[in-house]
Amino acid sequence: MLRYHTAGESHGKGLLALVDGFPAGVKIRPESIDFELRRRQGGYGRGDRQRIESDRVEILSGLRQGKTIGGPIALMIPNRDRRIDEIEEISSPRPGHGDLNGSIKYLGPIGDVAERASARETAARVAAGALAKQLLVLFDIEVFGYVAEIGSIAVPPPPGNLDVLRSLRDRSELYTLAPDRDAEIKSSIDRAEKDGDTLGGVIEVRVEGLPFGLGSHARWQERLDGRLAQAVISVPAIKGIEFGLGFEAARRPGSQVHDPIRYDPSQADSPSLGFVRPTNNAGGLEAGMSNSRPIVLRAAMKPICTLGNPLDSVDLETLQPAPAARRRSDVCAVPAASCVVENVVAFEIARAMTEKFGGDSLTEMRARWRLFHDLARKRIDPR
Amino acid sequence: MLRYHTAGESHGKGLLALVDGFPAGVKIRPESIDFELRRRQGGYGRGDRQRIESDRVEILSGLRQGKTIGGPIALMIPNRDRRIDEIEEISSPRPGHGDLNGSIKYLGPIGDVAERASARETAARVAAGALAKQLLVLFDIEVFGYVAEIGSIAVPPPPGNLDVLRSLRDRSELYTLAPDRDAEIKSSIDRAEKDGDTLGGVIEVRVEGLPFGLGSHARWQERLDGRLAQAVISVPAIKGIEFGLGFEAARRPGSQVHDPIRYDPSQADSPSLGFVRPTNNAGGLEAGMSNSRPIVLRAAMKPICTLGNPLDSVDLETLQPAPAARRRSDVCAVPAASCVVENVVAFEIARAMTEKFGGDSLTEMRARWRLFHDLARKRIDPR
Amino acid sequence: MLRYHTAGESHGKGLLALVDGFPAGVKIRPESIDFELRRRQGGYGRGDRQRIESDRVEILSGLRQGKTIGGPIALMIPNRDRRIDEIEEISSPRPGHGDLNGSIKYLGPIGDVAERASARETAARVAAGALAKQLLVLFDIEVFGYVAEIGSIAVPPPPGNLDVLRSLRDRSELYTLAPDRDAEIKSSIDRAEKDGDTLGGVIEVRVEGLPFGLGSHARWQERLDGRLAQAVISVPAIKGIEFGLGFEAARRPGSQVHDPIRYDPSQADSPSLGFVRPTNNAGGLEAGMSNSRPIVLRAAMKPICTLGNPLDSVDLETLQPAPAARRRSDVCAVPAASCVVENVVAFEIARAMTEKFGGDSLTEMRARWRLFHDLARKRIDPR
Amino acid sequence: MLRYHTAGESHGKGLLALVDGFPAGVKIRPESIDFELRRRQGGYGRGDRQRIESDRVEILSGLRQGKTIGGPIALMIPNRDRRIDEIEEISSPRPGHGDLNGSIKYLGPIGDVAERASARETAARVAAGALAKQLLVLFDIEVFGYVAEIGSIAVPPPPGNLDVLRSLRDRSELYTLAPDRDAEIKSSIDRAEKDGDTLGGVIEVRVEGLPFGLGSHARWQERLDGRLAQAVISVPAIKGIEFGLGFEAARRPGSQVHDPIRYDPSQADSPSLGFVRPTNNAGGLEAGMSNSRPIVLRAAMKPICTLGNPLDSVDLETLQPAPAARRRSDVCAVPAASCVVENVVAFEIARAMTEKFGGDSLTEMRARWRLFHDLARKRIDPR
Repeated sequence: MLRYHTAGESHGKGLLALVDGFPAGVKIRPESIDFELRRRQGGYGRGDRQRIESDRVEILSGLRQGKTIGGPIALMIPNRDRRIDEIEEISSPRPGHGDLNGSIKYLGPIGDVAERASARETAARVAAGALAKQLLVLFDIEVFGYVAEIGSIAVPPPPGNLDVLRSLRDRSELYTLAPDRDAEIKSSIDRAEKDGDTLGGVIEVRVEGLPFGLGSHARWQERLDGRLAQAVISVPAIKGIEFGLGFEAARRPGSQVHDPIRYDPSQADSPSLGFVRPTNNAGGLEAGMSNSRPIVLRAAMKPICTLGNPLDSVDLETLQPAPAARRRSDVCAVPAASCVVENVVAFEIARAMTEKFGGDSLTEMRARWRLFHDLARKRIDPR
Repeated sequence: MLRYHTAGESHGKGLLALVDGFPAGVKIRPESIDFELRRRQGGYGRGDRQRIESDRVEILSGLRQGKTIGGPIALMIPNRDRRIDEIEEISSPRPGHGDLNGSIKYLGPIGDVAERASARETAARVAAGALAKQLLVLFDIEVFGYVAEIGSIAVPPPPGNLDVLRSLRDRSELYTLAPDRDAEIKSSIDRAEKDGDTLGGVIEVRVEGLPFGLGSHARWQERLDGRLAQAVISVPAIKGIEFGLGFEAARRPGSQVHDPIRYDPSQADSPSLGFVRPTNNAGGLEAGMSNSRPIVLRAAMKPICTLGNPLDSVDLETLQPAPAARRRSDVCAVPAASCVVENVVAFEIARAMTEKFGGDSLTEMRARWRLFHDLARKRIDPR
Repeated sequence: MLRYHTAGESHGKGLLALVDGFPAGVKIRPESIDFELRRRQGGYGRGDRQRIESDRVEILSGLRQGKTIGGPIALMIPNRDRRIDEIEEISSPRPGHGDLNGSIKYLGPIGDVAERASARETAARVAAGALAKQLLVLFDIEVFGYVAEIGSIAVPPPPGNLDVLRSLRDRSELYTLAPDRDAEIKSSIDRAEKDGDTLGGVIEVRVEGLPFGLGSHARWQERLDGRLAQAVISVPAIKGIEFGLGFEAARRPGSQVHDPIRYDPSQADSPSLGFVRPTNNAGGLEAGMSNSRPIVLRAAMKPICTLGNPLDSVDLETLQPAPAARRRSDVCAVPAASCVVENVVAFEIARAMTEKFGGDSLTEMRARWRLFHDLARKRIDPR
Repeated sequence: MLRYHTAGESHGKGLLALVDGFPAGVKIRPESIDFELRRRQGGYGRGDRQRIESDRVEILSGLRQGKTIGGPIALMIPNRDRRIDEIEEISSPRPGHGDLNGSIKYLGPIGDVAERASARETAARVAAGALAKQLLVLFDIEVFGYVAEIGSIAVPPPPGNLDVLRSLRDRSELYTLAPDRDAEIKSSIDRAEKDGDTLGGVIEVRVEGLPFGLGSHARWQERLDGRLAQAVISVPAIKGIEFGLGFEAARRPGSQVHDPIRYDPSQADSPSLGFVRPTNNAGGLEAGMSNSRPIVLRAAMKPICTLGNPLDSVDLETLQPAPAARRRSDVCAVPAASCVVENVVAFEIARAMTEKFGGDSLTEMRARWRLFHDLARKRIDPR
């Protein structure tokens, strides 16, 4: 089963992801990982650190002649800023960070916690997700994330297929689907910066091309919605997640929530096997399993915790009031977070794919994908 | 480490939870588990099944003379309705259920999926959570859940400590904190029933008495917010979760989100160690760790999927349009779900407690709790 | 992935195994589980407890109309002797048992440890293994265990296929492959009993019908030999395990250890794919993966720790010398242990099968088995 | 909980170990890791590769100012020989290697398997174990491995404490405890080399300074003996393991196996708490838990699979007989393996230590170690 572990600190040698269980025989394009790393560094509203770093992945293991071999794949994103041993200590914990609770839990200096709790860790998660996408694309599964709100400005997605939406997003400095509203948003970010403040936002991710039956209803630990929720909420600064209609579903009657099922034999050859749904309020997930409709989720990101105008805190040396410590930071990192969330979702989808279809080799996985759909079609229509 | 696994079907012999890693030496009160099971069966808007069943736990293992012994604790809630082998097959999958995707995934009959995907499984999760609470209470940790919205009616929590709130909740047939609004909500449920419709809602849970440092920032898989999210989202029908301000945090500037830190030596003996916060917008979690403030979370429950007035579906035998299958069901189960969510949260908190404080025996765990706070106090104020 | 958890005490309500990840659609024969449970209770040299209990499995979940449904399968073996709350306390720890270390670890009474550390827990493990065999048999995989030594008497296996060996074993009261030597062994057991002593022995298990590629070389945690070793060593009283030539391999030069490879096209349709080996010194495992030859392992069982003539110990109340506590026990349980080891091996093989071939449904698993062999044959001989 | 994952190939960029759950605040000496890596490369009988490589660890993450911070620790041992993309393909699978079964399992080239199945992976495991030892030493726990047999020559351990034994071992080119027998063993290795043959052997490891209660009887997956067995058997070429008397225990009556218990108040302050045992036939483990006596285990290593005089195999291109492929290799690697086994044992002991004593910080872990012994002493002797 596909899974990964990360390591690394904000100002250490770099960030690492060790990916286990990736099928053998997949050609890996490191430049696709770099592309995602670059997207993670981008977006209007970023601070100095992004000007120092220029993230590129180094693949330390798991490939031979450019292809996976079935062994663990270690990815490293080296840091340029490696001052971990010299960096000045933090004495006043920053509200919203893990400074206070982490230093108490570990009975150690705040700096030790801050180095690992840093959002730079998400570079490793993006790299793992970007690797996972290279498996998904071979099954025509696409994972697409974008910014739906920044601060008080909402940018609802227009209609259109993923190609259309992608071209919109890639023209927006804020990774929204409305590049024409960039100016408005940028000025709100500029205003926040001038006020010594920060902004959060809302991210949407959709996954298309899914088969039936990723995840499982049989064990709560294997429900795909639960796993996606853990993966997304564990991204720093994410404070909420919803699937499909989400909280809105709680407020509507059932007749306006659940997605009717129809059968259209002309689509029997697609992963939908012919079962079409006029709506997708469930966001592609029923009983913890994919239902062949796009998975759609939204995540809420709180504003960056390090403010230009620092919040009240306490000096841990003196126990007297003191402004929160300052470290260089962003004003708004919602675009970056949209890239992170997109990639952690991609990883969980790929993981569920290897659970359903096995993962020893791409050859076998592909043959099993076809086999499953053949068996399913025969079950549905034995003629 | 504390963990659990469930088994059982809707109309099988019963539901089971196997709980591993519970500390030795804890006196268990089965009646406290039964109390939660009864609450799970209650709430206005329930259907016939709740009149058939009258859930009581049977503890199959793990106790000697009423106390835990360090071995696995198996809990069983026997079913009265055990017709699993006779129950009629479902031919038209019900939108919102796992009928369609589950039967395709497993290449088998819908009934096989429906038996396990049933919300009756949550009885096992409630039992495990209720057991976990008996550990938490020994550390003065309380987990409290209630209904904050049903359909379009919101019932915001009034101020007050947990005792006040609990007495309000326990007087409400809807498990809200405003029993005086029961009539209004009940009539909206009655109306939905008459319309052949169903209602969802929003649940809040708060956890008080927590120490610093449950969860960890160091591995994304161990962040407490991520684990809580998985546990809650994996409850059937839950489509969203948020912590503290949640989605609202995305829309406010940072200065109005993050919780300032102050030091009040008079509270140094409490689990807060003297660090007080005028607000709790973070919902008690920073960098994936508890910060000694109450954990506060909200979960969105979609309406029940089985409607009196069935949705459009397809007969899987004929592949022709057909109304979705009907099975006896509830009109509104938000009160029940509030009990489920409360208990799955309790379990995750207890699990995090055993990770932080170890779990061989209650004697050792308690001594370590004191030890940790002593060490932390010495670190904060070495004088 | 297939896995299981056990619960239960020696004198509690019974023993349980919760089996997760068993494929859907497998017809289960409870009588086959009972057959193994009966074998576990048998063998010459057993004590009183086996006359009290007459183990039969009760399947609490996971079946509908006699077939698995993809959900967890809970197995219970009820105890007749349920005196857990009345049983007298143990004051002098028994050497060889977990009495001393367990009561210190858990800071509690010895009896709490003894109830869970009891070899009766193996009834749950046998039940889980016997369930797993019902999957294996559908792939023509057989797991066969027998006694190779008891005390100082060795009973080497004669040549012959599994049918021949099984009929020998099933005629032996000691589960050896030489029923004609039963009298000799029984008298050595009788002698040990008269001396207030006990006997151990050596068990062999062989697994036939395996495909290539169970386990993996890529992660040490997934090597099949390592997993088998953990499963077998964790059976109470097992103090050693070896695969194939085992310790003997350490003493021979490489030229007399490694198994040459030949190709015989007439066997290309078998799981060996035509690769035949004149020897099987590796015991069917190379680089942590099955190599299509039989897996052969041997396990050493120490003598029963409770002696008729008790060993020296200490009274924990007085800290004065005292004979070890006595509880009814067996003189020799090697035959029973051979059944336990056979079944825990069966479970690990089935687990590895679901890892390689997936486990949602038997239909899919079988089709994948064929698919894998087709792909492998095409790779070997593309013509 | 402490755990680790490895990555890397024989001729890739290097070998990696990602260690999770190491307590914060431990000063790490990289030179101690390098010392073990050098020992792994040594021993008489090694081939060319050891002359090319000169392993040194690079610590990629997890430290700040030389101390652990509670985050994952990534260790890398760079390869000098990095020809993974150019190395010639293997066409005739080598008996004893994973060449045949691995290439079938993954439906790919043998070389892909050979790169990861290589014993060079054990460098990563040694590094992880050497790191773990730096935790153990703070609790006065020592793990000591040596060679007890090579081929047909047995070198039984003399009496003496660990200091004496260590100085003997460190004077032996074969890592035995009898440097005066080196000449005899070296000439047997030379003879094997001249014959185009290879030699295996037997390794012993003992662990001293252990507390009561590492591991657990309550879940078979957590028994310490089972975990040690998995860790050791998963070392390439290890075909057997035994604890204490091991297989010999199977052949003796119980009265000559189990270790009597005595109480000596003068030793109550040691980790034995005063419980002394005249023998240690159990090898320090009863019911899957440490009993404060030294853990003693023996592992059997088969001879190296790559023979100077190659074994019969098959050319996979032609399916015709062909000698097994040759790659540079050792004649005897038992000394190296003794270092590997020592270090994987060290890791499992450290893992069990963090399970029993928690692992957030060294400060807390040490205080808990004292606390546990205080509580245990009070339980034993309440006066």
